[in-house]
Amino acid sequence: MIDARRRVVIERVDPEIDCGRYPIKRVVGERVSVEADVFADGHDELACVILHRPQAEPRWCQAPMRLVANDRWRGEFQVDRLGCHLYTVQAWVDHFHTWARDLLRRLEAGQDVRVDLDLGAELVQAAAQRAKGADATALRRAAEALKGPKGTRTAVSAELAELMARHSLGHFPTVYRRVLRVTVDRERARFSAWYEMFPRSASPEPGRPGTFADVEARLPYVAEMGFDVLYLPPIHPIGKTGRKGPNNTIGAAPSDPGSPWAIGGARGGHKSVHPELGTLADFKRLVHAAKRHGLEVALDIAFQTSPDHPYVRGHPEWFRKRPDGTIQYAENPPKKYQDIFPFEFDSPEWRPLWRELCSVFEFWIDQGVRIFRVDNPHTKPFAFWEWVIGQIRDRYPEVIFLSEAFTKPKVMYRLSKVGFNQSYTYFAWRNEAWELKEYFTELTRTEAREYFRPNLWPNTPDILTEALQRGGRAASALRFVLAATLGARYGIYGPAFELAETAPLMAGREEYLGSEKYQIRHWDLDRPESLRPLIARLNQVRREHPALQQDRTLRFLATDNHMLLAYAKTARRTASEGSDQVVTIVNLDPRWRQSGWVEVPAEPRPGKPGYAVRDLLTGSSYTWRSDGWNYVELDPAVQPAHIMSVERTLLPLPEEA
Amino acid sequence: MIDARRRVVIERVDPEIDCGRYPIKRVVGERVSVEADVFADGHDELACVILHRPQAEPRWCQAPMRLVANDRWRGEFQVDRLGCHLYTVQAWVDHFHTWARDLLRRLEAGQDVRVDLDLGAELVQAAAQRAKGADATALRRAAEALKGPKGTRTAVSAELAELMARHSLGHFPTVYRRVLRVTVDRERARFSAWYEMFPRSASPEPGRPGTFADVEARLPYVAEMGFDVLYLPPIHPIGKTGRKGPNNTIGAAPSDPGSPWAIGGARGGHKSVHPELGTLADFKRLVHAAKRHGLEVALDIAFQTSPDHPYVRGHPEWFRKRPDGTIQYAENPPKKYQDIFPFEFDSPEWRPLWRELCSVFEFWIDQGVRIFRVDNPHTKPFAFWEWVIGQIRDRYPEVIFLSEAFTKPKVMYRLSKVGFNQSYTYFAWRNEAWELKEYFTELTRTEAREYFRPNLWPNTPDILTEALQRGGRAASALRFVLAATLGARYGIYGPAFELAETAPLMAGREEYLGSEKYQIRHWDLDRPESLRPLIARLNQVRREHPALQQDRTLRFLATDNHMLLAYAKTARRTASEGSDQVVTIVNLDPRWRQSGWVEVPAEPRPGKPGYAVRDLLTGSSYTWRSDGWNYVELDPAVQPAHIMSVERTLLPLPEEA
Repeated sequence: MIDARRRVVIERVDPEIDCGRYPIKRVVGERVSVEADVFADGHDELACVILHRPQAEPRWCQAPMRLVANDRWRGEFQVDRLGCHLYTVQAWVDHFHTWARDLLRRLEAGQDVRVDLDLGAELVQAAAQRAKGADATALRRAAEALKGPKGTRTAVSAELAELMARHSLGHFPTVYRRVLRVTVDRERARFSAWYEMFPRSASPEPGRPGTFADVEARLPYVAEMGFDVLYLPPIHPIGKTGRKGPNNTIGAAPSDPGSPWAIGGARGGHKSVHPELGTLADFKRLVHAAKRHGLEVALDIAFQTSPDHPYVRGHPEWFRKRPDGTIQYAENPPKKYQDIFPFEFDSPEWRPLWRELCSVFEFWIDQGVRIFRVDNPHTKPFAFWEWVIGQIRDRYPEVIFLSEAFTKPKVMYRLSKVGFNQSYTYFAWRNEAWELKEYFTELTRTEAREYFRPNLWPNTPDILTEALQRGGRAASALRFVLAATLGARYGIYGPAFELAETAPLMAGREEYLGSEKYQIRHWDLDRPESLRPLIARLNQVRREHPALQQDRTLRFLATDNHMLLAYAKTARRTASEGSDQVVTIVNLDPRWRQSGWVEVPAEPRPGKPGYAVRDLLTGSSYTWRSDGWNYVELDPAVQPAHIMSVERTLLPLPEEA
Repeated sequence: MIDARRRVVIERVDPEIDCGRYPIKRVVGERVSVEADVFADGHDELACVILHRPQAEPRWCQAPMRLVANDRWRGEFQVDRLGCHLYTVQAWVDHFHTWARDLLRRLEAGQDVRVDLDLGAELVQAAAQRAKGADATALRRAAEALKGPKGTRTAVSAELAELMARHSLGHFPTVYRRVLRVTVDRERARFSAWYEMFPRSASPEPGRPGTFADVEARLPYVAEMGFDVLYLPPIHPIGKTGRKGPNNTIGAAPSDPGSPWAIGGARGGHKSVHPELGTLADFKRLVHAAKRHGLEVALDIAFQTSPDHPYVRGHPEWFRKRPDGTIQYAENPPKKYQDIFPFEFDSPEWRPLWRELCSVFEFWIDQGVRIFRVDNPHTKPFAFWEWVIGQIRDRYPEVIFLSEAFTKPKVMYRLSKVGFNQSYTYFAWRNEAWELKEYFTELTRTEAREYFRPNLWPNTPDILTEALQRGGRAASALRFVLAATLGARYGIYGPAFELAETAPLMAGREEYLGSEKYQIRHWDLDRPESLRPLIARLNQVRREHPALQQDRTLRFLATDNHMLLAYAKTARRTASEGSDQVVTIVNLDPRWRQSGWVEVPAEPRPGKPGYAVRDLLTGSSYTWRSDGWNYVELDPAVQPAHIMSVERTLLPLPEEA
């Protein structure tokens, strides 16, 4: 038999991912708003709190919840420590509150309440026994007073209500049946600007391959543009068997450098550096130098090998055999990639394999790396990622994993659920206003926002979209603004991107011509068409505007021209400064000037229909009207977007946090 | 460490109520359509089945699932036995299917597939070991053939594909982490027409109180109207202390009969019958006589007592004491109901109390009752209902519980989740087209449809709505049609309803004047305005049309007049008969003729824009057009609605079952 006396029901706690199987994500200092359906039989008043604590702490903290409407309650708490934080909901019948409510009704009806005051005195006396110190004394006195001549005055006093609220705890409180988790990351997991570059192309001298030292010399260039993560493709020795030549051709010349993702050769594998880049010591010096420039080095972890990787000889049991005894190379039938061997993650020897792969992360953590971009995680088991990320984050909760999965939506979401802190997205292929709205509404207004942190890349070494190919520099500029304002996290693969390199390998293909994956490039960073000034300016704007450092408040605004995409983001600054409000309007047409009207729902102020807005890209000021639509005009030859700082309070949408 | 090798993920199984905490509901013979997100890392083909079984059976049955789109899979199974049925989802990597798909691609690209055929032979050989009899032999032969000169022909043969599908079982299948439940009821839980009447008003002689024998004499009247449940308010001895007089007045005359809900007196309590109604033997005879008329007697169970109930003296520990030592009467402050004592469900003696209340159901089950209408369940703990309904249904899975909870939506839903098979609704107060659409869309298109079975009552002894008061007979007629066609389950409180008795106690109150709750009424059943012919006709239509025997396919149709509410229901008949399709158009205006156009999306047939529809109420036929809207006109003085049998196939909505 169940215990009859837990009368309160707690249902539909939100956020809760897959019945509590997966944690939600936050960064240090953020708040978690929790809602729940809470109700009981009958007509009693209820009390309801969030219970929460860092996993390592033994004691629960309480945060109050308030009735919103229709048995829905809401409260919030803040997470202040890296790692795992727990929360759940507790509720109980609030006998005192019920009693006080009923007493008031009886008094209003002029009824005799002597027996009721006695009942109240019993409740207050019980609370006095739970309380300590001054509260206990005050409660004992109130219990006495309720039975005295001024009992009704005591009963309805605000002082007693407050005292009793502090010591409210009904018999048989209900605790929600699941304890839920928050993964608390550091702030960079939420807010970061990534710059990807190939070290071997960093040499200032054409013809000489770049080194870690050359990357060090490039740091001021990257830092001045305002990036904070410097992401390097694999830096390991590259296999020779089946090595690809320029533009992914078969049969490389001896001088061809090969793809950095064909990992492993005579000089080592995932824990070695390519000798031409320098030594491990050089790499560590780069990591430290980057830090001095406000940059954090992120490494690419690709769990696959070239046929020459030491693992192939040392651990043939980690690879699948074909019936003819050879090792199964990577395939996407009928395509064959004989230069790449995948691991057999579900081989009978999976345990030692997994441990070894975990040690790859540990090795680079020991060298000072705390951010990993993981290559194609969707071709390895989810269970592996959940395990390995858990292993690492238990000891290094500051480590950030970016999932490079361009695959089906549910698979991408699942990778984030099992632990990836950020993920690549479909952003690169969302060009029209309607599809950008639809996609970013999904990312910011559905449950996905609780665990999936989009990282928006207009390009990667693998992705030169048609939009960029056709739209030239103006398309790069507008895609950059979209990435850096729609997303608190974004990245570019440079210098190809800022130099607006948009020549494809061939029509209809998204591959770069002369891709750095297969050859070393020399870049003229001072090309006049460089987007460097725009990038530097916008990264500065992002740093100054908390609204752009998060995505939860993103909402789209109506425009009367579908080539104009408009959206607002808002964030609290510190209490004294009020709120930060940024409205971005992007001209999605890289060719033609577009004009139109944008609806910005701002707080009306009697007699003051106009208010000032300032374009953060240009410094220009405009006057907008709160009682209607506002005119904008954008010429792609001049600027891709307005990024407006708005002083008049924007009216929030109902669901806004 | 987790087992790496369960690579398939199963998420978002639907239906699933509160993470599997509560069962869904079906009746015997119904199907359960199950969907799930099913996917794995990589690009392998998957196989997926529903596992299901009656709880009492040890072995799982399998029902196939098919990929719908975007990693969403769907399948269905049928429940054929009363009680609890279990289901879950199992999936695995289908190595043979993956192999066959890849082989085809390789063949198309003209590649050498000798090694691949060897690989396939291994898979087929493994399946041969799982198979038995002829299949095992055939598989062994196929494995040989794959290695022979005609290997590719064998590989791509449909025969082998079928054989392998029958014996597909990957290594390390994933079983969904929760086993889900279906409560399987008898058909009447889904499809029933209820008639409520006060036995004491059933006497044909004015002045003499009615008896069970009088109810027996009334059975043909009720049965001829087509009802199948005869529901009686409490039939127990009535308390004298604080008895209410006519129209809920205080201070009853000695001749006043009192409210049947003030249960218990000198002659007994919940397990006794009121002596004026007859004996227990008379009641049992009534139950049997009803059965012969196709009627099932439902009893009202109200867990509360009059101050004179034997429990009050025998078990004072089951009631709450006030500080002055008296028993706490029912209250809704400042209102006091001194003639009613509620039980204290969470008293320290709750266990014996609960057992006693359970035995009340058992007692009436022993007298042949299998349907209970439970009074105000929302003022008793949910845990009690879950326990007591579980206790009863474990032994008597045919018992049906109707929840009489008119309260907050989440509370009503919860009562259904914990076990009530049917529930009262807000139907009585939904009058406008928009609010009817909104409410019935919620009831039939959201998760609620899986556990909440609405039972629609246009009136009850407590509820004479303003719409009925103002709209007279025409309003009663239209509300009747709405109840009986929007809901597969509905009920009326008669004879007040069919006689269109609509005089309220006073303006602004929903109480009947001269309510049968407090006095005995004599009804002239032959009043000419009686709705009896309409009721009889529509109940016959309901019996003949499976479309009206369920709610899941309800969908609303567009009209250009908001006083016309139009909706369709469809159901499969037996395979040979095709599908049953009923379109109902109700004139919501009880006063004025309304006309307008209704959009009925029917299958177009080239050259045949017109098709016949037949009004099931009147027998009239009309020709409708499939390529547009159709005109209708309804005069409340003539008929409240069209109920059209439609022969041309209605186009289904995407989400339709």
